[in-house]
Amino acid sequence: MAVYTEITDDELAAFVSAYDIGRIVSFKGIAEGVENSNYLLQTDRANYILTIYEKRVAERDLPFFLGLMDHLADRSFPCPTPIHDRDGDALRRLAGKPAAVVSFLEGISIRRPTADHCAQLGATLAQLHLAGSDFTLKRDNALSVHSWRPLFEGSHKEADSLEPGLGAHVAQELTDIEQHWPTDLPHGVIHADLFPDNVLFLENRLSGFIDFYFACNDFYVYDLAVCLNAWCFEPDGSFNITKARAMLTAYRRQRAITPAELAALPLLARGAALRFLLTRLHDWLNQVPGALVRPKDPLEYWRKLQFHRGVTGPSAYGLE
Amino acid sequence: MAVYTEITDDELAAFVSAYDIGRIVSFKGIAEGVENSNYLLQTDRANYILTIYEKRVAERDLPFFLGLMDHLADRSFPCPTPIHDRDGDALRRLAGKPAAVVSFLEGISIRRPTADHCAQLGATLAQLHLAGSDFTLKRDNALSVHSWRPLFEGSHKEADSLEPGLGAHVAQELTDIEQHWPTDLPHGVIHADLFPDNVLFLENRLSGFIDFYFACNDFYVYDLAVCLNAWCFEPDGSFNITKARAMLTAYRRQRAITPAELAALPLLARGAALRFLLTRLHDWLNQVPGALVRPKDPLEYWRKLQFHRGVTGPSAYGLE
Repeated sequence: MAVYTEITDDELAAFVSAYDIGRIVSFKGIAEGVENSNYLLQTDRANYILTIYEKRVAERDLPFFLGLMDHLADRSFPCPTPIHDRDGDALRRLAGKPAAVVSFLEGISIRRPTADHCAQLGATLAQLHLAGSDFTLKRDNALSVHSWRPLFEGSHKEADSLEPGLGAHVAQELTDIEQHWPTDLPHGVIHADLFPDNVLFLENRLSGFIDFYFACNDFYVYDLAVCLNAWCFEPDGSFNITKARAMLTAYRRQRAITPAELAALPLLARGAALRFLLTRLHDWLNQVPGALVRPKDPLEYWRKLQFHRGVTGPSAYGLE
Repeated sequence: MAVYTEITDDELAAFVSAYDIGRIVSFKGIAEGVENSNYLLQTDRANYILTIYEKRVAERDLPFFLGLMDHLADRSFPCPTPIHDRDGDALRRLAGKPAAVVSFLEGISIRRPTADHCAQLGATLAQLHLAGSDFTLKRDNALSVHSWRPLFEGSHKEADSLEPGLGAHVAQELTDIEQHWPTDLPHGVIHADLFPDNVLFLENRLSGFIDFYFACNDFYVYDLAVCLNAWCFEPDGSFNITKARAMLTAYRRQRAITPAELAALPLLARGAALRFLLTRLHDWLNQVPGALVRPKDPLEYWRKLQFHRGVTGPSAYGLE
């Protein structure tokens, strides 16, 4: 949730006139996206999302993100399509910051996904991995295993303020995950942030993925690990094996999961839990007074991590 | 800017199905309205605004607000029209709170109004006063002169933290305004919060007023006083007499301003400045850590108040 940038009337008019998208009918800041300022821009032709990239998104990464959406949309993958201006550019500047316009995707995000939603998620995630496999730009996962220790060092001491002993437990877990992190799994473009917020459904049919601003090159199965954590736990913290089975089974109907990927899944799920635990911990301990964003509970991800530590094989995820 | 309430999938589906407005295509929290949670609801038929009333709006006032919008829309005044459910009710409940759906008004709010925008504002404000004159429900202005002393008493001591001496100056001003506040000016339904945020323009033609949640019965000229403050000062704090003249002249072409109203305008403008000074001061001194709203500068309104104290007659506002 974020609308950080003030835009003057003249700036907005000049910006929109650089595109062949019609005349402005409405322009409203929307409560979506923690990293950027997002606006719903309605013209007399269509609806668009206008995004202003705030400082948490590196400007050098924008050609990757916008190029990826272009690439995926070309392959009929359901995602926002960058709108190019009259000169052919998808990236412009607005109010002194990088900005882009993308097509508006219909659909609503689901707060309480069912097993059917999870199945659709799995199938579409496999399609994403396949459609992205020939995308030529590369972007390392800046929030993968190598980043976790530096991230943790900033919050180690204060972690115990959330739960006594948390700091030491996380340190041990981090060391263990670092030592066992795989190096040679199938990899390519992943979304890396597929929370229910970022998946739209129209009448319970998946209509698209949004918010590609964490997309990067990493193990495909890491995306599945993120989704296991974000989609397959109930509000009471319990793991829903039916949802996991639905998601993974639908995924592998589109793209085979190799035995090595399957064997690595519990560890990657712990890693994915640790990644969100650490960024949430950082945001929790660095709250800005008056900030527009309410931080999320880091301990939710510590509890998810515990679950995966107890997993001994794929049957825990509903697979043989 | 506010989206406070979490709505589950089932709650939303059940709520929308109570209306004959089609099927949900999109649902996004929008960064508008400080008092309520607002969502842009798109269906396969039209766009709507869904509002959930948070605790700062008294539930007993909702029939007045919704009834007023109904009344005005019936008279072709450009404002959102409440959508009635299949039982004919405009007020329902969602996520345990009062909620309503209104029609979506096209247009964008102007950050830097020109004299022409101010003229259109003045003309439309007069139309509002005329169209509301036969509305039968009543609501006292809870933020008029009687409320200012209790409001100030909560912030008197801390006011000096903003500017040394501010507390004593405001106290003196408050006493002066209370003593001279008029009792017998023409009155009726006013908007009471007509900031540029709440006025939409489509291609520079005024398309409507929104956010009627401060509307009440009070002196008509108090609405003009609020608008003088909100529309006719430049970002550097200077008063733009051309804009004031444009606004007031256009207003009185539609509804005559009486000599008594004209004489009272400088005092009412001071009062209107004091009202926003005091509520901003209260919000400034009562910031909630992690709140979603960034407080506005109270001193901006103290400086506006100073200007009106120096006004000796209508010529300062561009009128003979």
